[in-house]
Amino acid sequence: MHQDLAAQLIDPETMERLVRLAELDPELIVEDFGTPEAAAALAETEVIVSSWGCPPIDRAVLDAAPRLRAVLHAAGSVKHHITEACWERGIQVTSAARANALPVAEYTVLAILAGNKQVLRISADYRARRDRFDWRAEYGRIGNYRRTIGIVGASRIGRRVIELLRPYDFDLVLHDPYLTPEGAAELGARLLPLDELCALSDVVSVHAPQLPETEHLIDRRRLALMHDGATLVNTARGSLVDQDALTAELVAGRLNAVLDVTVPEVLPADSPLYDLPNVLLTPHIAGSLGNELHRMGAAAADELARYTAGLPFRDPVLPQDIQRIA
Amino acid sequence: MHQDLAAQLIDPETMERLVRLAELDPELIVEDFGTPEAAAALAETEVIVSSWGCPPIDRAVLDAAPRLRAVLHAAGSVKHHITEACWERGIQVTSAARANALPVAEYTVLAILAGNKQVLRISADYRARRDRFDWRAEYGRIGNYRRTIGIVGASRIGRRVIELLRPYDFDLVLHDPYLTPEGAAELGARLLPLDELCALSDVVSVHAPQLPETEHLIDRRRLALMHDGATLVNTARGSLVDQDALTAELVAGRLNAVLDVTVPEVLPADSPLYDLPNVLLTPHIAGSLGNELHRMGAAAADELARYTAGLPFRDPVLPQDIQRIA
Repeated sequence: MHQDLAAQLIDPETMERLVRLAELDPELIVEDFGTPEAAAALAETEVIVSSWGCPPIDRAVLDAAPRLRAVLHAAGSVKHHITEACWERGIQVTSAARANALPVAEYTVLAILAGNKQVLRISADYRARRDRFDWRAEYGRIGNYRRTIGIVGASRIGRRVIELLRPYDFDLVLHDPYLTPEGAAELGARLLPLDELCALSDVVSVHAPQLPETEHLIDRRRLALMHDGATLVNTARGSLVDQDALTAELVAGRLNAVLDVTVPEVLPADSPLYDLPNVLLTPHIAGSLGNELHRMGAAAADELARYTAGLPFRDPVLPQDIQRIA
Repeated sequence: MHQDLAAQLIDPETMERLVRLAELDPELIVEDFGTPEAAAALAETEVIVSSWGCPPIDRAVLDAAPRLRAVLHAAGSVKHHITEACWERGIQVTSAARANALPVAEYTVLAILAGNKQVLRISADYRARRDRFDWRAEYGRIGNYRRTIGIVGASRIGRRVIELLRPYDFDLVLHDPYLTPEGAAELGARLLPLDELCALSDVVSVHAPQLPETEHLIDRRRLALMHDGATLVNTARGSLVDQDALTAELVAGRLNAVLDVTVPEVLPADSPLYDLPNVLLTPHIAGSLGNELHRMGAAAADELARYTAGLPFRDPVLPQDIQRIA
């Protein structure tokens, strides 16, 4: 993983657990498997704890690591470093996607609550006017009562969002190609085709994986189906939304958006998305940040404890899942 | 209530219920009990449905309303219109404080989640820089993992905030002079003296009623107890916080704040609170707004249904409660 990431990821409590569970050099953080230091370590390594910045574990790395049996990824997606060769070698893989889903879901909850209440717009208006004002009269379609929230994708994050939103007065609708109406009802949501979800929802929140078939899942036509004043929330990947079409809707003021991801990340300096009053734009921060990184480190330590105790992993990543998850 | 409020408060569904339950003229909205129209209506009135803008129901009004038995308040506090004379006459009073607590609690949740994640500050920084940036390095103390959230006041709103925050990885601490440690534990929080709560919490959120003894409950000394980078959330009443002392802390950048209430409301145009990057300032919108008003209208209709069925009210307001509630 990145050198400077280790200390942020592994708090003293987790490091103490790791050292208790395994022979581990707390100083050895590898960013490049090609160094002599890394090669020496790999020759002995049974378990790799990886995170953002881990280079691909390809055939050469595997050849240098004859005893390697497991990679515990203290982050979300394993797509960048777990190669076909890992699966062929039968390397066991786990991820902290469950731990990383929580902050994204929590960010989504705040985005939905703030969006429905138009908090940022009212705050900006108040700052501009500095005068008494009938917010009730001017902001007719506002508030968190009996809103329809459309969740696109029953991913870990999508499911957690539904769970967190259950105590609110929302009508929760869900689209997921892998789910039955009964499965959706068990989660606490009503299954809908995506077009219908877009047309019905006050908020459409995207929680689908980035795959060739999900590119522009929310395209120009589906954006046009969304009703005036509805909000699109994207904490997943920029490619899931037709950004040009969305930008046109936002510039026109017809839709609102909370965008934590874009194409590209960082946006060009002249992008209108930076300055629109109906857009909350953040630089890919919904996932684990600050103390939330500790949760992913702790999740990896949990998996190591299970491994050393001979128990199955809690969050194994299987080769057959790779095509449908983020 | 205010003339223009009625349509916002009572949606067609609720009006249909009201008309079914009682003899009621949907056109008769009274803002002033002194008009001949109001006097004629009062002579026959058994139940008043009131809301914001209801003038005091004093002895003169009561004398004009010999058949009056109940006031169903479709809003939070009844202190502005329920007089001592109402209690003496034995008028039954209910309020929609429970319904009005929900949006305030929901606003508080979003304020806490956004505050811990420093969403607004990062968004503003991103807008200013428009460049790649290591948010992880610059924003060390950030995130919603293992934060200590201090709730001041186990009011309806305070309790609801605790309930909504339970699924998160927070340490919830609570101060309330009327609660035992066991009572707090049942709610899912740890009871603390107020000073200790201020010193320990990453977020201090005020949910106490406005009373003479709660004026400047969060005073200069308690603000100073809060640690660097902590956030004060006030959705209750501006008088609960020493605003001069808080402003000094905010101008210095030592604390952050989410302020939905201030003294006075609206702040003077030259108040620094409008422009500080570490303050989210809104004009008293956390309570029911937009479609959230419909929930309060529906709550009043629920109480009317109970009244006409001879059932006790769900949310009675009793004279002995008046001194300790908002």
